[in-house]
Amino acid sequence: MIGIDWGTTSFRAFRIARDGTIRDRRAGPRGILNVPNSRFAETLREEVGPWLAAGEDHVLLSGMIGSRQGWKEAPYLPCPAGAAEIAAALTDVPFDWGQVKLVPGLAAEDAAGVPEVMRGEETQIIGCLAAIGGSGLACLPGSHSKWARIDARRIVGFTTHLTGEAFAALRGHTILARMMRDGATDAAAFDQGVTRSGDADGLLHHVFGARTLALTGRMAESETASYLSGILIGHEVRAALGAQRGVVVQLIGTPELTALYARAIAACGCYAERHDGDAAAHGLAAIGGHAAWT
Amino acid sequence: MIGIDWGTTSFRAFRIARDGTIRDRRAGPRGILNVPNSRFAETLREEVGPWLAAGEDHVLLSGMIGSRQGWKEAPYLPCPAGAAEIAAALTDVPFDWGQVKLVPGLAAEDAAGVPEVMRGEETQIIGCLAAIGGSGLACLPGSHSKWARIDARRIVGFTTHLTGEAFAALRGHTILARMMRDGATDAAAFDQGVTRSGDADGLLHHVFGARTLALTGRMAESETASYLSGILIGHEVRAALGAQRGVVVQLIGTPELTALYARAIAACGCYAERHDGDAAAHGLAAIGGHAAWT
Repeated sequence: MIGIDWGTTSFRAFRIARDGTIRDRRAGPRGILNVPNSRFAETLREEVGPWLAAGEDHVLLSGMIGSRQGWKEAPYLPCPAGAAEIAAALTDVPFDWGQVKLVPGLAAEDAAGVPEVMRGEETQIIGCLAAIGGSGLACLPGSHSKWARIDARRIVGFTTHLTGEAFAALRGHTILARMMRDGATDAAAFDQGVTRSGDADGLLHHVFGARTLALTGRMAESETASYLSGILIGHEVRAALGAQRGVVVQLIGTPELTALYARAIAACGCYAERHDGDAAAHGLAAIGGHAAWT
Repeated sequence: MIGIDWGTTSFRAFRIARDGTIRDRRAGPRGILNVPNSRFAETLREEVGPWLAAGEDHVLLSGMIGSRQGWKEAPYLPCPAGAAEIAAALTDVPFDWGQVKLVPGLAAEDAAGVPEVMRGEETQIIGCLAAIGGSGLACLPGSHSKWARIDARRIVGFTTHLTGEAFAALRGHTILARMMRDGATDAAAFDQGVTRSGDADGLLHHVFGARTLALTGRMAESETASYLSGILIGHEVRAALGAQRGVVVQLIGTPELTALYARAIAACGCYAERHDGDAAAHGLAAIGGHAAWT
């Protein structure tokens, strides 16, 4: 089969053998925002034409391609949901060169009844179920970080944190912007921010400290962006873990981001296992294995 | 005497009688950022020339005019400090038509040893000491909200929260921007945000809910900005009050902002008394009364 993680700004395709191994892969910038005039069928054929020509005719798509702005809306499926429930809720789209199905996003409510949605992350989490061992906690850091609880191989609930976007907004569009510099994350300053996030007086107070520490010469301006990152990721991790200690968090994302989250999780007395982008391929394979192809 | 609250973008001057009553006032946009080529002396003469001509020659300035970007830097004075300590630390600047003195900003450290600074707010707090009764808690909401503890008529410590700037950055520069509208604050949505700020899972999770509530039709898009404001102000107030209940907070600021903060403070089981912009005039009068004019 062909599995594709088709997001807002990226397109990652995998040719997957029956046993789940990845036979081939390709990636590019043709996310749904970069496909003019909704030419999704044509784009798909251009990207994976050789695999289709080689006889693959099961194509499973996850991510924002199934949103209202994508090829066709694949309605959100309520939690709890695992590979079988998701496979039973796929949305078919017409395609002249094979069968194409869309993975639905998932919907949930948090403890206070506020709605939650994810689209694309569910497939990556399903792809890590082997590591999770059927139950546990997964975190997908990013602009909108997701924390998901897994029980009996199903995603039972999740929460979203606006951490990545909040970092960019505070770093770029407040008084902090004047002192912050681009560049690699300074681990010591990041850790200092994570420690700071455990203090009293709250996030909105902690972020102001990036300014006063630099103003008073107690932190180099070049370190303040890493410190801010540590404060925000630290607040996210502490809120998501609550009073839990000693638990293992499955981190799914880019190596740079999962490395930072692993530091923050360790600082909170928990453990992290890191997974890379192939989680999407494994999830597509697992869902595709349950799907009703004709 | 003449007292002037001279900030970054605003200039507010008061002609103050010996007994502290305000005899006259004027306000305009000539904050220090709007004074080209550091023409502070000329600007001062242009703004309050008639009062100088009438015989006033004691001029006390508070606010960013005493910063490195202002007329002359008036170094930060460490807390605790009251009117007498501040008056003993004024900085003189040369002026051909009268004596001009600058009020110093205050410096402190929070419970974790992170430095804090204020410049201008100390004068407003001093101006409210009569209402505070010598001891208590004052809050000056804004881009960088200040919470100050007052004991025995001296400011003993304070914390800053980046609430106003964080609101503008999140409202204008994240995915939330797409749904938010300008306009007056919706009190019910604001209160809902304040309530939300007391839930588990933290600020970065709560702000994402503004999006999902609107996406799922459970909140009108036009209400989301007020909801976000309630979440952020709620988090600030809860962090600043901690476990305190039944205390009175002196709110100093614009009527619009202090009205919102009063709602959030009431929601946390405390009380608010609201003060307007004349707090600066009263503070300048109190400090000027202790000053060593020649």
